[in-house]
Amino acid sequence: MEQPLVEFELTKEFRDRFQQALDEQDDQFIHNILADVKSADITSLLYEFNSEESKYVLGLLDMDVQAEIISDLDSDTRKRFLKVYLPTEIIDFLNHLPSDDAADILNELPIKEREEVLSGLNPELRIKVTELLRYEENVAGGLMAKELIKARYYWSVVQCIDEIRKQAENVNKFYSVYVVDEHDVLLGRVALQDLIISDTRTIVDDIYEKDILSVETYMEDSEVAEIMQKYDLESIPVVNVRRQLVGRITIDDVLDVITEQADEERQIMAGISEDVEEDDSVWRNTRARLPWLLIGIAGGLMNAKFMGLFEEELARVTAIAFFTPLIQATGGNVGIQSSSLIVQSLANLDFVDEGLWNRFVKVFFVALLNGLFLSVLVFGANVLLFGEYQLSMIVSLALFSVIVFASFIGTVTPLILNRLGFNPALAAGPFITTTNDLLGLTVYFFTVHLMLK
Amino acid sequence: MEQPLVEFELTKEFRDRFQQALDEQDDQFIHNILADVKSADITSLLYEFNSEESKYVLGLLDMDVQAEIISDLDSDTRKRFLKVYLPTEIIDFLNHLPSDDAADILNELPIKEREEVLSGLNPELRIKVTELLRYEENVAGGLMAKELIKARYYWSVVQCIDEIRKQAENVNKFYSVYVVDEHDVLLGRVALQDLIISDTRTIVDDIYEKDILSVETYMEDSEVAEIMQKYDLESIPVVNVRRQLVGRITIDDVLDVITEQADEERQIMAGISEDVEEDDSVWRNTRARLPWLLIGIAGGLMNAKFMGLFEEELARVTAIAFFTPLIQATGGNVGIQSSSLIVQSLANLDFVDEGLWNRFVKVFFVALLNGLFLSVLVFGANVLLFGEYQLSMIVSLALFSVIVFASFIGTVTPLILNRLGFNPALAAGPFITTTNDLLGLTVYFFTVHLMLK
Repeated sequence: MEQPLVEFELTKEFRDRFQQALDEQDDQFIHNILADVKSADITSLLYEFNSEESKYVLGLLDMDVQAEIISDLDSDTRKRFLKVYLPTEIIDFLNHLPSDDAADILNELPIKEREEVLSGLNPELRIKVTELLRYEENVAGGLMAKELIKARYYWSVVQCIDEIRKQAENVNKFYSVYVVDEHDVLLGRVALQDLIISDTRTIVDDIYEKDILSVETYMEDSEVAEIMQKYDLESIPVVNVRRQLVGRITIDDVLDVITEQADEERQIMAGISEDVEEDDSVWRNTRARLPWLLIGIAGGLMNAKFMGLFEEELARVTAIAFFTPLIQATGGNVGIQSSSLIVQSLANLDFVDEGLWNRFVKVFFVALLNGLFLSVLVFGANVLLFGEYQLSMIVSLALFSVIVFASFIGTVTPLILNRLGFNPALAAGPFITTTNDLLGLTVYFFTVHLMLK
Repeated sequence: MEQPLVEFELTKEFRDRFQQALDEQDDQFIHNILADVKSADITSLLYEFNSEESKYVLGLLDMDVQAEIISDLDSDTRKRFLKVYLPTEIIDFLNHLPSDDAADILNELPIKEREEVLSGLNPELRIKVTELLRYEENVAGGLMAKELIKARYYWSVVQCIDEIRKQAENVNKFYSVYVVDEHDVLLGRVALQDLIISDTRTIVDDIYEKDILSVETYMEDSEVAEIMQKYDLESIPVVNVRRQLVGRITIDDVLDVITEQADEERQIMAGISEDVEEDDSVWRNTRARLPWLLIGIAGGLMNAKFMGLFEEELARVTAIAFFTPLIQATGGNVGIQSSSLIVQSLANLDFVDEGLWNRFVKVFFVALLNGLFLSVLVFGANVLLFGEYQLSMIVSLALFSVIVFASFIGTVTPLILNRLGFNPALAAGPFITTTNDLLGLTVYFFTVHLMLK
């Protein structure tokens, strides 16, 4: 009796053996060994080889599998990869893909090639793809697929099943039948499980679920993801302004949106300016990092210029300089902690605005507690380590103020960014860190200037 | 004709009107207004009221809805909330939940109450839940639900449909029927869509899909999430060591795992030590932040002590101090950029280990390019701003070295952490920033010491 498959693991041995087969053009071996491997695993395997080799491997597989694998590649890799394909070859595999995947790939082609490929698609797919190409990538229209099962409310269950039989070839996975009126206006849905247990003579109108959620074509992808996650939906219908059913979005597309958002947020927090992956080219990696580093450098130069104003004090008491890293690092850490918590609550909860004031009061108290505890601790440590009461007092006072200020800035900035329509995660990035560095220095030297007699 | 619902929006007006109804115990109003609101939205609404009020609102709803809402609450809120419930009341709503949700809630109760509630559940649910309670929360066994549709391979499609009819009440959403042998060993699955279009006399053995993925009970939740995402699965069967079917995991559970991971990573990167949300108490927020701030403070004190060793040089050329923030900030930024890219590629790709060397070479070149560009730029800026050739040269040399060092540390640390079984995102957190600060200072003052004659 056959065993369910376990996950495929890409080992160095496997890869080397595979490379050897490739070099020897051992088609038989490649074909046999890939027969048991899922297409998502073949995709990972292809990342190990160059475009020509990958094309050769794909050529040994069924067109269905080939199309699925190409559609699974990440966008940058695919752009490079498809350069070794002729337009007619692209047409061949696109014809085996659902409309949303085909449209995504077409969007990546150079405009001239795009037109040629589009006109070569089979008519049914061409109509669907042409419609999808109208939408931006990051809205519901750009995420949706045209393939779905649609039933009129006055149909019987038998008619539904006939329709499913007809569409089953086009539609990969579906879990419900969408119910529409004569003008294709969305009315509701019937879950497959309800269809199965209904008598075949039942009329759809009697069994369909009426209160269903739908999204409009222009809704942002992050909002679609939020809705599907909040209401635990495995698919959601997409309607146009006249509420006509035009497509559906499935949970796997949304999962990709969520993963991409997490990546984007991580990059913003880390100060990487363009969508870059570690295995992109040296030049691209360098370019992605430079802008934020430049902001940091500009901040650093301003720091230096600012400290220059206090040259006299510094020359008198050199030890003042010793504590700038302590003040700045703590300010930076507090700022990032505060803004991350806000970014998180913006991402996960829809809170009522009125809570804003309570929020500030709480942030203030948290800052006070942290500030008090740390300043007292640092005062003690400084007296022990350096033995200078006056300087220790100055450092602790400045530290306390910086903690309170940085909490406030860290809390306010993401809220303002969010209100202005920017990604609030920017507030946890280098721009704010640089601002906080300057703030820390200002507070510190101001305190020094006032208290150092 | 009825319009499909749009997303519910929680406005201040709605909340205030609702509060008023609550105060007046206007049951009719509450009941009517909530009739059109989805349970996930009622959940959000409850976050606005206290436990007693929330319990009162829930009491006006059907037990089904009530159970779903309580199961939707986040774990911390629910723990607090259930304190106002008697064990018998908890039993009532648990009886309306699928086994996985019921087990999660039971896990949160105090042990004594847990036993009492468990023994009061209806027998069928009690058996399922008792089994689930054996598993850790973060493994497949802790994620899975016991409710599923199971068919023997020798059944006909009609028998399957009868089974579905019988189970439909217990199982919320299902998309496939799992096929097992006489000993419950998992053989494969039949998608509902295939069942619908098959002739009713067909034998399951002839139509079921054999090569399906399954996970074992002890597999980690993050791994389950990775597999389901990679292979685009909407549900996956769970088997025990004898490959017997014991449960199934659906994509919505996994979506929650993915979101929690993103939150966790964000908190680690921001230096927050325990799972905390912005609306937790002041004390909890303070406690969550302190440990990392203390590490930063300890680093700051070490910085100060270290700079003290160079008091002589600093007293001679005060301007040396001006550039420590520049050097340290840049080192920190480069380190975080490097480690974030590694964390991202660890999260998204399974790469072959052999690529490690190439990876380092590339990171090195990116660092060289960034370092060269920025040091030259800073040299020019310093000469213009401060006019001191020798010091400018020292700063640029140190800056260059720090960029190269920080890239290396930022790249290696997450890889080592990952190899040792820690979350690699730790490398983008305050611990590494603090290390990089010290590193920057060391390199800078070492250069100063060598070159300043």
